[in-house]
Amino acid sequence: MLSVKEIKEQIIHAVQTVRRTNPLAGSITNSVTINFVANAQLAVGGSAAMMYFPDEGEFLARAGGATYINVGTLLPIYEQTLPHTAKVLYEVGKPWVLDPVAVGIGSLRTKLLQQFKEYKPTIIRGNASEILALAGLWGLDGGTAMSNVRGVDSTDSVSSAKAAAVALARFTGGAVAVSGETDLITDGYVVAVSYGGSHFMERITGAGCSLGGVIAVYATVALPFIAALTGTAVYNLAGSRAEKKVDGPGSFQVQFLDELYKASAEEIADNPFEVEE
Amino acid sequence: MLSVKEIKEQIIHAVQTVRRTNPLAGSITNSVTINFVANAQLAVGGSAAMMYFPDEGEFLARAGGATYINVGTLLPIYEQTLPHTAKVLYEVGKPWVLDPVAVGIGSLRTKLLQQFKEYKPTIIRGNASEILALAGLWGLDGGTAMSNVRGVDSTDSVSSAKAAAVALARFTGGAVAVSGETDLITDGYVVAVSYGGSHFMERITGAGCSLGGVIAVYATVALPFIAALTGTAVYNLAGSRAEKKVDGPGSFQVQFLDELYKASAEEIADNPFEVEE
Amino acid sequence: MLSVKEIKEQIIHAVQTVRRTNPLAGSITNSVTINFVANAQLAVGGSAAMMYFPDEGEFLARAGGATYINVGTLLPIYEQTLPHTAKVLYEVGKPWVLDPVAVGIGSLRTKLLQQFKEYKPTIIRGNASEILALAGLWGLDGGTAMSNVRGVDSTDSVSSAKAAAVALARFTGGAVAVSGETDLITDGYVVAVSYGGSHFMERITGAGCSLGGVIAVYATVALPFIAALTGTAVYNLAGSRAEKKVDGPGSFQVQFLDELYKASAEEIADNPFEVEE
Repeated sequence: MLSVKEIKEQIIHAVQTVRRTNPLAGSITNSVTINFVANAQLAVGGSAAMMYFPDEGEFLARAGGATYINVGTLLPIYEQTLPHTAKVLYEVGKPWVLDPVAVGIGSLRTKLLQQFKEYKPTIIRGNASEILALAGLWGLDGGTAMSNVRGVDSTDSVSSAKAAAVALARFTGGAVAVSGETDLITDGYVVAVSYGGSHFMERITGAGCSLGGVIAVYATVALPFIAALTGTAVYNLAGSRAEKKVDGPGSFQVQFLDELYKASAEEIADNPFEVEE
Repeated sequence: MLSVKEIKEQIIHAVQTVRRTNPLAGSITNSVTINFVANAQLAVGGSAAMMYFPDEGEFLARAGGATYINVGTLLPIYEQTLPHTAKVLYEVGKPWVLDPVAVGIGSLRTKLLQQFKEYKPTIIRGNASEILALAGLWGLDGGTAMSNVRGVDSTDSVSSAKAAAVALARFTGGAVAVSGETDLITDGYVVAVSYGGSHFMERITGAGCSLGGVIAVYATVALPFIAALTGTAVYNLAGSRAEKKVDGPGSFQVQFLDELYKASAEEIADNPFEVEE
Repeated sequence: MLSVKEIKEQIIHAVQTVRRTNPLAGSITNSVTINFVANAQLAVGGSAAMMYFPDEGEFLARAGGATYINVGTLLPIYEQTLPHTAKVLYEVGKPWVLDPVAVGIGSLRTKLLQQFKEYKPTIIRGNASEILALAGLWGLDGGTAMSNVRGVDSTDSVSSAKAAAVALARFTGGAVAVSGETDLITDGYVVAVSYGGSHFMERITGAGCSLGGVIAVYATVALPFIAALTGTAVYNLAGSRAEKKVDGPGSFQVQFLDELYKASAEEIADNPFEVEE
């Protein structure tokens, strides 16, 4: 098990390497927050590209250091694009981040999320309800058969999703990040909790989606657990800093992007977190 | 007929209930302003979810307190999704808001807007040209046979659309909001005019679309006429407040979201409006 | 050849005419930056409308003073919409701006960009790698057979694309704008370089796309070369002004839209540029 000191060193390394190398993390993501995902990826030093067709998804999978797949607003072409892209990612061994937005709603979403089980997403990021429902859909421990997802919002607490997150991470061999008031990150063995953030993150759309995209950026240069923790840490840091400077959600979103850009590697590593086995 | 005092009490109740209960108003809306619609809905205290497939539209229709349908950038799947969702909304008696963006352009748009006549949108929000053209398309009094819609902008005055708005509201049994320099809201019998706003609202994209989404949020907890008037009032208040603090459209959009979030229920109720029978 | 004084007069005329007449430039563009394109077009005084269907594309082509086509996030319907719209534009002689985003990625993109050769886009705007690759795809001088496009970012310098830009402009009879640290604009005979901008323009998404949309706005009232130079000049001016007032990419985007709105016609004409034959 990594020590806290080693974890911090790896976070610093991930942040600095991304800023120096500007790695590409392509996305297939929803239309609501697609702009915010790209801007957040750019703000932390990554490069973004979004596409819809199967051969383009394959191109991004091969060309990028990691890929972000978010099932928020499915289009018909996704029925071909998503399994094909996930299969390529799995076969070439490239990291990818799955955001199982609104799992449980609609037949295509359910079908795609079932197919992803075979292609083992390297990192899964979601709110507690989504993590519980995905574990349930995949027949893993700790999951729920019935989704408590209400549209795109969580109705479960982060701690209630701990067993499901651990089970998902053990199954994939990667990491899981559960977003909420306090965030939980696990590789199936170590469980970290990350503190910070802002109440405004629920008053803007895309805090979760863009975190998924940023985690994909870090996954181009770091282990899944470190990538998930680094992304979560910079979000918690930027969120709490931005909140102090604004008094509304419009200003918060702007300031939040600025803080993502300005946070130093050391500050991100020092954002409060705890680790347990 | 409601007195002005009763109207203000109902506005206050709508604003406070939304902030306390965080109601879901799902949307099927255009890709240009989809992010702004969601952020505006969140800023006033609602919850947002956007989807494209027929079974997802039905899910949102049943799960949400109201639904927002905007025909701005139609996709092929909308040919199935929109009539199906509107039919479900009509059959289960859930309120829905129609934004007939760019009525008159393209054959699918015309076909969908004709189909919606049967499913009687609870609230119709549009600019004057759109309201005139929709009434014309539906064969109602006051409508125009020829659309004066130029792309997505109005070429008619709000007052010129009064008869069409009244006819539409009487036909649906709901309410109509005509957006312009001064806004008109009617349930087919009472006509209110709401004052305020900003010249910057025509220099950003999505002021109208996001108002439709916000009206849907209020329609989860208020009568159609009150929902339309409340949404229009908070937009006029936030617009005039934001304008005083900024000198460009970028800052305006940010400040406008902040003002939506900060406006108190009493301030929204006190935004100037007049009522006539 | 126009003198620098004549060029400046035509820039001033373009900026003022746009602000006075609010011309419509419709777009078929990618979902990542579609909102920013519309807001930038509105900020400089134009009117925006975005659509996806062939008959709607034709409507925009005929109704607008110019049209912007960006192949960033292709959808299946684009296979019909884009060639049809480009054909209408060519046949009716309306100016249109092509943004060959990510040329070389995916079979549909390649097919569409090949088809566009026949319909001669009035203005082509891209980064150096895109201009080189498009010239190569069309078999013109200076082009590269192999694309160096990495996702949506350029890996070539602006100056290396000069011959390709000249060849493309001579072929179309219009103009080409190559975006980079220093921007190059040519009508195939005169080559202008435009200075300014900001390092933040690479840390936000959509600086290039929205420039394409803004050039389309100016193309409704100016010759292709002047439209491309005017758009590039206002971007360089607004970028350098915005950079001085902000310390992060979130604030930059907001301030940049404000500066687009506030820049006077004379200031835009006076933004540093050089002309060579």
